[in-house]
Amino acid sequence: MAIQRLISGTEVSKHNTRESCWIIVHGRVYDVTDFLPEHPGGMKIILKYAGKDATEEYDPIHPPDAITTNLPPEKHLGVIDPNTVTQVVREVTTEEIARQERHERKPPLDEILNLHDFEAIARAVMPEKGWAYYSSAADDEITHRENHLAYHRVWFRPRILRDVHQVDWSTTILGQKSAMPVYISATALGKLGHPEGELNLTRAAGKYGIIQMIPTLASCSFDELVDATVPGQSQFLQLYVSKDRAITKRFVQHAEKRGIKGLFITVDAPQLGRREKDMRMKFEDTGSAVQQETGEKVNKSEGAARAISSFIDPSLAWKDIPWFRSITKMPIILKGVQCWEDAVLAAEAGLQGVVLSNHGGRQLDFARSGIEILVEVVAALRERNLFPNPNFQIFVDGGVRRATDVLKAVALGATAVGIGRPFIYAYSAYGQAGVERALTILNEEFEMNMRLIGAPTLKDVVPAMVDASNITMHVSNVPDDRLYHANYESMQRSELRTVMSKL
Amino acid sequence: MAIQRLISGTEVSKHNTRESCWIIVHGRVYDVTDFLPEHPGGMKIILKYAGKDATEEYDPIHPPDAITTNLPPEKHLGVIDPNTVTQVVREVTTEEIARQERHERKPPLDEILNLHDFEAIARAVMPEKGWAYYSSAADDEITHRENHLAYHRVWFRPRILRDVHQVDWSTTILGQKSAMPVYISATALGKLGHPEGELNLTRAAGKYGIIQMIPTLASCSFDELVDATVPGQSQFLQLYVSKDRAITKRFVQHAEKRGIKGLFITVDAPQLGRREKDMRMKFEDTGSAVQQETGEKVNKSEGAARAISSFIDPSLAWKDIPWFRSITKMPIILKGVQCWEDAVLAAEAGLQGVVLSNHGGRQLDFARSGIEILVEVVAALRERNLFPNPNFQIFVDGGVRRATDVLKAVALGATAVGIGRPFIYAYSAYGQAGVERALTILNEEFEMNMRLIGAPTLKDVVPAMVDASNITMHVSNVPDDRLYHANYESMQRSELRTVMSKL
Amino acid sequence: MAIQRLISGTEVSKHNTRESCWIIVHGRVYDVTDFLPEHPGGMKIILKYAGKDATEEYDPIHPPDAITTNLPPEKHLGVIDPNTVTQVVREVTTEEIARQERHERKPPLDEILNLHDFEAIARAVMPEKGWAYYSSAADDEITHRENHLAYHRVWFRPRILRDVHQVDWSTTILGQKSAMPVYISATALGKLGHPEGELNLTRAAGKYGIIQMIPTLASCSFDELVDATVPGQSQFLQLYVSKDRAITKRFVQHAEKRGIKGLFITVDAPQLGRREKDMRMKFEDTGSAVQQETGEKVNKSEGAARAISSFIDPSLAWKDIPWFRSITKMPIILKGVQCWEDAVLAAEAGLQGVVLSNHGGRQLDFARSGIEILVEVVAALRERNLFPNPNFQIFVDGGVRRATDVLKAVALGATAVGIGRPFIYAYSAYGQAGVERALTILNEEFEMNMRLIGAPTLKDVVPAMVDASNITMHVSNVPDDRLYHANYESMQRSELRTVMSKL
Amino acid sequence: MAIQRLISGTEVSKHNTRESCWIIVHGRVYDVTDFLPEHPGGMKIILKYAGKDATEEYDPIHPPDAITTNLPPEKHLGVIDPNTVTQVVREVTTEEIARQERHERKPPLDEILNLHDFEAIARAVMPEKGWAYYSSAADDEITHRENHLAYHRVWFRPRILRDVHQVDWSTTILGQKSAMPVYISATALGKLGHPEGELNLTRAAGKYGIIQMIPTLASCSFDELVDATVPGQSQFLQLYVSKDRAITKRFVQHAEKRGIKGLFITVDAPQLGRREKDMRMKFEDTGSAVQQETGEKVNKSEGAARAISSFIDPSLAWKDIPWFRSITKMPIILKGVQCWEDAVLAAEAGLQGVVLSNHGGRQLDFARSGIEILVEVVAALRERNLFPNPNFQIFVDGGVRRATDVLKAVALGATAVGIGRPFIYAYSAYGQAGVERALTILNEEFEMNMRLIGAPTLKDVVPAMVDASNITMHVSNVPDDRLYHANYESMQRSELRTVMSKL
Repeated sequence: MAIQRLISGTEVSKHNTRESCWIIVHGRVYDVTDFLPEHPGGMKIILKYAGKDATEEYDPIHPPDAITTNLPPEKHLGVIDPNTVTQVVREVTTEEIARQERHERKPPLDEILNLHDFEAIARAVMPEKGWAYYSSAADDEITHRENHLAYHRVWFRPRILRDVHQVDWSTTILGQKSAMPVYISATALGKLGHPEGELNLTRAAGKYGIIQMIPTLASCSFDELVDATVPGQSQFLQLYVSKDRAITKRFVQHAEKRGIKGLFITVDAPQLGRREKDMRMKFEDTGSAVQQETGEKVNKSEGAARAISSFIDPSLAWKDIPWFRSITKMPIILKGVQCWEDAVLAAEAGLQGVVLSNHGGRQLDFARSGIEILVEVVAALRERNLFPNPNFQIFVDGGVRRATDVLKAVALGATAVGIGRPFIYAYSAYGQAGVERALTILNEEFEMNMRLIGAPTLKDVVPAMVDASNITMHVSNVPDDRLYHANYESMQRSELRTVMSKL
Repeated sequence: MAIQRLISGTEVSKHNTRESCWIIVHGRVYDVTDFLPEHPGGMKIILKYAGKDATEEYDPIHPPDAITTNLPPEKHLGVIDPNTVTQVVREVTTEEIARQERHERKPPLDEILNLHDFEAIARAVMPEKGWAYYSSAADDEITHRENHLAYHRVWFRPRILRDVHQVDWSTTILGQKSAMPVYISATALGKLGHPEGELNLTRAAGKYGIIQMIPTLASCSFDELVDATVPGQSQFLQLYVSKDRAITKRFVQHAEKRGIKGLFITVDAPQLGRREKDMRMKFEDTGSAVQQETGEKVNKSEGAARAISSFIDPSLAWKDIPWFRSITKMPIILKGVQCWEDAVLAAEAGLQGVVLSNHGGRQLDFARSGIEILVEVVAALRERNLFPNPNFQIFVDGGVRRATDVLKAVALGATAVGIGRPFIYAYSAYGQAGVERALTILNEEFEMNMRLIGAPTLKDVVPAMVDASNITMHVSNVPDDRLYHANYESMQRSELRTVMSKL
Repeated sequence: MAIQRLISGTEVSKHNTRESCWIIVHGRVYDVTDFLPEHPGGMKIILKYAGKDATEEYDPIHPPDAITTNLPPEKHLGVIDPNTVTQVVREVTTEEIARQERHERKPPLDEILNLHDFEAIARAVMPEKGWAYYSSAADDEITHRENHLAYHRVWFRPRILRDVHQVDWSTTILGQKSAMPVYISATALGKLGHPEGELNLTRAAGKYGIIQMIPTLASCSFDELVDATVPGQSQFLQLYVSKDRAITKRFVQHAEKRGIKGLFITVDAPQLGRREKDMRMKFEDTGSAVQQETGEKVNKSEGAARAISSFIDPSLAWKDIPWFRSITKMPIILKGVQCWEDAVLAAEAGLQGVVLSNHGGRQLDFARSGIEILVEVVAALRERNLFPNPNFQIFVDGGVRRATDVLKAVALGATAVGIGRPFIYAYSAYGQAGVERALTILNEEFEMNMRLIGAPTLKDVVPAMVDASNITMHVSNVPDDRLYHANYESMQRSELRTVMSKL
Repeated sequence: MAIQRLISGTEVSKHNTRESCWIIVHGRVYDVTDFLPEHPGGMKIILKYAGKDATEEYDPIHPPDAITTNLPPEKHLGVIDPNTVTQVVREVTTEEIARQERHERKPPLDEILNLHDFEAIARAVMPEKGWAYYSSAADDEITHRENHLAYHRVWFRPRILRDVHQVDWSTTILGQKSAMPVYISATALGKLGHPEGELNLTRAAGKYGIIQMIPTLASCSFDELVDATVPGQSQFLQLYVSKDRAITKRFVQHAEKRGIKGLFITVDAPQLGRREKDMRMKFEDTGSAVQQETGEKVNKSEGAARAISSFIDPSLAWKDIPWFRSITKMPIILKGVQCWEDAVLAAEAGLQGVVLSNHGGRQLDFARSGIEILVEVVAALRERNLFPNPNFQIFVDGGVRRATDVLKAVALGATAVGIGRPFIYAYSAYGQAGVERALTILNEEFEMNMRLIGAPTLKDVVPAMVDASNITMHVSNVPDDRLYHANYESMQRSELRTVMSKL
């Protein structure tokens, strides 16, 4: 590697316009002038850092190698002379100080009793932008909430007097061992919650023997995440298919070479959803001052995710499937199947499985939950003698918070369940230790609930153990009669006597 | 046109009694003494302005030509001498000042993310009387809310891996092009929300290529609204049938001559509904002082709408349909059909379509929603081989807020969906630009959701794409057990530690 | 009538013990010593007034003739010497003053828009004891509320294009004309709400051409209520059957002689229900001081109603029905039938009808609503060719607040609907004028809704006009997941900008 | 019995370490050093009392004989010299003072109107630890609440005109007379609520002629509870089966010898559930100071119950049933059956009955309620001609608060219903008198409701008296549309006029 040119901060700071735009990232200087129109996140956000150090903004949104990959070598101008650059003194807002103070007040990890608790703490201690990105969902977030509530329409029919001294909830997913019927689902922009990003997941997964699905839009680079595995640890890859298939091919074949055990092609996101809570956050982020400065109109109709997803190919279709089979030997699974018809097509196309998913409620509102779709998919596959079938596995994700949720899905035919947000919230609040605590809790819940439903192994978790007869019930109360209810005087509970004042 | 007599304000002010009542409207003086008993809105409201300028009160309730049409020429006394009339200094109430101050604080239009947002802002910034009139509905407003909630009982079954690079949600309504499967439904008294009234709708519709249905009870005159169209722009007409069929005939034939493309006869309003929120508003409007002055008893049992609707003929019946077909060649559609039996009758009567509607919940409470009726109507027509049928189109209106709502209706068989209140709220808050923003939002939602359900065109939006099996479920929770719930101690979420005071 | 002995207040005041107990009622002196153990309301309440004037307490609970009927003539001691009795200066409590002040603030009657409004005002202005007695219901008041909510599970299927210029909602009940398909149901202790008690109902009913059902436990005497009728006015009688059949026989035959047109035997109250709100009220009424004074233990397990109902015969059975038919020619109707089996038995027993009722939710909790029972009763009678049948009419009561409720019942097969509490609330707040306003409102609602459902007469209100398919749905939400909901961050509506302080 | 060694407090206080740990319980000194690792509740809690008097902590958790049974005789060191031990002056916390002050303000017992009221008062006056233990349930407590709510989906179909002068709700349970179709279900650690613990139940049960089920984990010893019976009083025994079957055998045979009339083997608790409210309580109990002192890590993942239940055998299976039949002639009933399949197995195994129960919602969340399971169990047994069958009785428990709940279960086929928490709350607030009041209330409710449903005896309480058609409905509302609801302006009820200030 050649000696790199040393560039002074003063020189960089001169290139702060649309016509000549240099930025500093991780101590290196890049000329991004020509790249501005192509930037998936828009020109505006880069111009904000023209002539300055953009590292802090860059990091959570991009893998470390994104800039070097996308910029031709001649635009890599050199390294910044550390003595010359006036350190950007990031003004710490009072809001940020309050947030850090809240961090100090987190309860100790062993007081976290369930996956819900991580979300409560993460919401209090993580940066607001990250919370907005992770927690938001499509339109009115009906599907987002339905994902969790749908599990409440499935009830157990537990069996008794079975020897449950030993219970074993380990399983095999696409041929890989997993300590539980759960994998870590792919979610983007992991560093918005924690500086280590998805590495928190990789490390905890390795320690607890479960499988991580690496997201295309990870904040960490793919190789970082693979490098962080321990021997025997399996990983899957979630794939957004690029309009430029050469890029996709390179990425897939690299993944296979690095030992990835399954390729999950996302099919529910030809366009990323409108997530209004995320969009509202953006308004606050880009004040009117900026607008006046540049005279450019901010497109406020897009949140963080849409900005970085313009490469996704909305023309991806069934006809493309053979091509994927031609470029890799990894098992191929479609992520985002939402009705039995497409599950049958996937099986008939020789794929290895489907994830019944609505993208965590982030895409189409009023899409049904994975657990609901599971019932019709298993019925349709069974009718066609395609289920059970070790070579075609069914997964669901979305809304899972308890081991009981997972066991319901397993009883109804799922091989395993993907969990996303709860693990992110766990590390956003507590780092890797949070993810490990989450897995410990799940293990405790699995042990107890396997015993309580009378199932020594996952093979014993059968359809007759649940009543899912209400799964398709999407009802709501007749709008309430406000005048009637205003008039109704409620029953009052028994109360302690009031103590009369001594005076 | 003859030179008009110039009348002094002093002279007008003398005619301020039941016996001789003159009023000024738009600079002209009228003798309305004999007209008082016939005024559809009651005598009282006119007497309030006897001898004065009534323009401000007149405008939102009447088309500009209402007074000239209804009053014989000899009662058109002349023009007011502008030098003599003491300008009625409208006392600006503190409430009105507060309202205008709220107007200043509206968020910029590009922060309006969905149709709900317009309603939130309109409620804050529009005159209270307009809000009461637009937002109110029949009885306990059960149907009003059901209209929206019913869409929540229909869920999507989206398809994947279809090429949705190009998606097209334009359609043809009664032979006219429409940029989306949406038309602007007719709603009365448009100037209650904005001085330009329904013109806001006409202009935005022209710009965005959608169709406006002109209301019989518009605040703008029919011709104003037609004159405001751009070349190629289509309009429909909503018709309240008068007891005096000659008036109706004249109106319909005039409309046809002006190029109206469809006649929507309202059949769900033989009498206008009791809208109690609107009625309560009226109480506040007419204080007791007025009552004492006149000694006349105000009939408080009627809101704004009923006052202006006494001309509607409650004896309109199926036997009248051939007559309509004899007076016009426009397609005739019945607006307000509410069961399959009447939809079948309409088809058999040779009409061109039906709007499944309950008048925005403003007429019969516990009438079912359009989307619910749609399911039974399509089934009944299909059974009789009357569906699909390009010459008999089905529309629904009521409760629509999202493109997903529209797509559900299209999947279930509707050609297009009428949207009313959201557009009114849009212009009440932001004028024409608000309506345009609303249409932009709908376009964005359509583009995204067409992709997400896997439908390149509206023809691909088929019944199998929705699960409407719960549409007839009108349930409510068993009344809650107040004592039990008062005793139940809720689960508590994990909390941050309390910081001990340093003292 | 002999000259009555004049007794001095001083003398009366000496008889203030269990051993010798005199009381003054309406200016007359009675020796009730021997009657104490038989008093249906318990000995204690009388002893509170021993030696004193009990008129004010006596009045709302008893018809004027109760004491003369129950006490042998020799215990009628004479009249009180008005000069000697120190007037009991009823201490007006601050609570009572506040209540009367609230009375002054009632809105004028023409601002009362619906039957709900009467309840809102009555609750604010009527004596608390009356409110507790009228508004309370059995156990957890589930059935009480279900009575109203059940109507919300029935939705309309209105018809269009029918000539509804003239609409007529009058009907015939047990051969008697009624201006609407509504009668005033029997409710006890009418003076708890207003000093004129049930007379308010009689007079308004006469004026509006509807039928009043006189309660056995009226505060006014039976004859007072009959005497108050106008020519042509019909009344029914509600009957609690006494253990002493001679009393019942006398009462029934007297009623028939006085022209009563129908005998409604209450069959859902072999024992009066536990109404806990009413019972709690009693605790407050009888303070601990009283307890100490008398050393007697108050039986707090009973509210007002049970105290006065001990005469009701719990052994009344089907075998008694022929006896009733033998003592009267009036139509006999069973009030309180709650399943089809008993309705069929009633028809087979040659009776003239049934009231499907659960006693306003005051008896058995989790009894079903009348409107729900109606569906199964009509189906069962129809199967047996017992419906329709002019000689066996079906009524329902409980929970009715709107004319739409009534029309639903009529569509499903009811001849008429009983309304109780709303009329009581109407006169408790506004006296007779309140009842008249209530009837005016109902007339307005009937006129409008007959038009809106497309029914010129009640004969046109047919089963196909309603969808009652959800009537038996008694569901409740799965208990909510408190941790999940605590974590969910709600969508926020668009807000006005905050104005920055000028400083 | 030998004279016991007298030990001074000073000597005991020296043995306050892990290496040598003595404690005082009820005036006797024990060396528990070797027992520390075996203590089911963990070593830590004992070490807190090393060298001190542990009686107060010991009592509610253990029967009096627990320590003598578990510790070999040589570790019973002697009795404490009362003159030497410095009385542990239990510091009374301000919280405890407030609690006792609340105790003084309890309403008198005759103002307690229903079983709910006991819970309201107990929550206010009982020690928080006891409340946490009794009231908590598994996971999100969905099943816990469902247990009560499920009864709300069953409605009555009462019969009329049956002679209900005499009503009799007594019954026979496993051959034993019971004054009502209710028994007192077994619940652990009775002294957490009241110093007399389960004795309150024994005494009240004896007085009211109902049967108490003695819990294995009672705070009182088994023999204490048997000794407290009156002649003719029956008791059952709830059994947790020990890993050491010799202990179980001894316990069962001792129980039979003492006259126990039924053996209820708990089969729904191979492992005790995670009760998070109880677990959170423990955090507060063991402060961080303790942690620092000992350097030992507290296992916070367990509440009170799990600590004392490690002896329960999770390998208990159907194959063990014959052994139970071989060691006792008592009727054997399985407690915790949750589907028809296991009920049929139990009947086929020759057992005498099943309790359809989910352990009060304390074990598996999303287990169904007993009343729901009852419907499928009775149907399945009936199909196999196993029902009705006097030798195989069906019981349910969980969620019962009213006699109506019990009657619903009886109508659906249950012989009797177990009630647990309400009785504990009754004595936690009011001691034995509370339990007696609870039974009085139930008697009053039974008398009334037997009359109101038209059933002179329990044999008349038949399936046709209830509508349980909704029992399997586990639905929830579609997640609410927050933006829509935020915009909807509610109907407002009629209000009193505001009084204008005189100024």
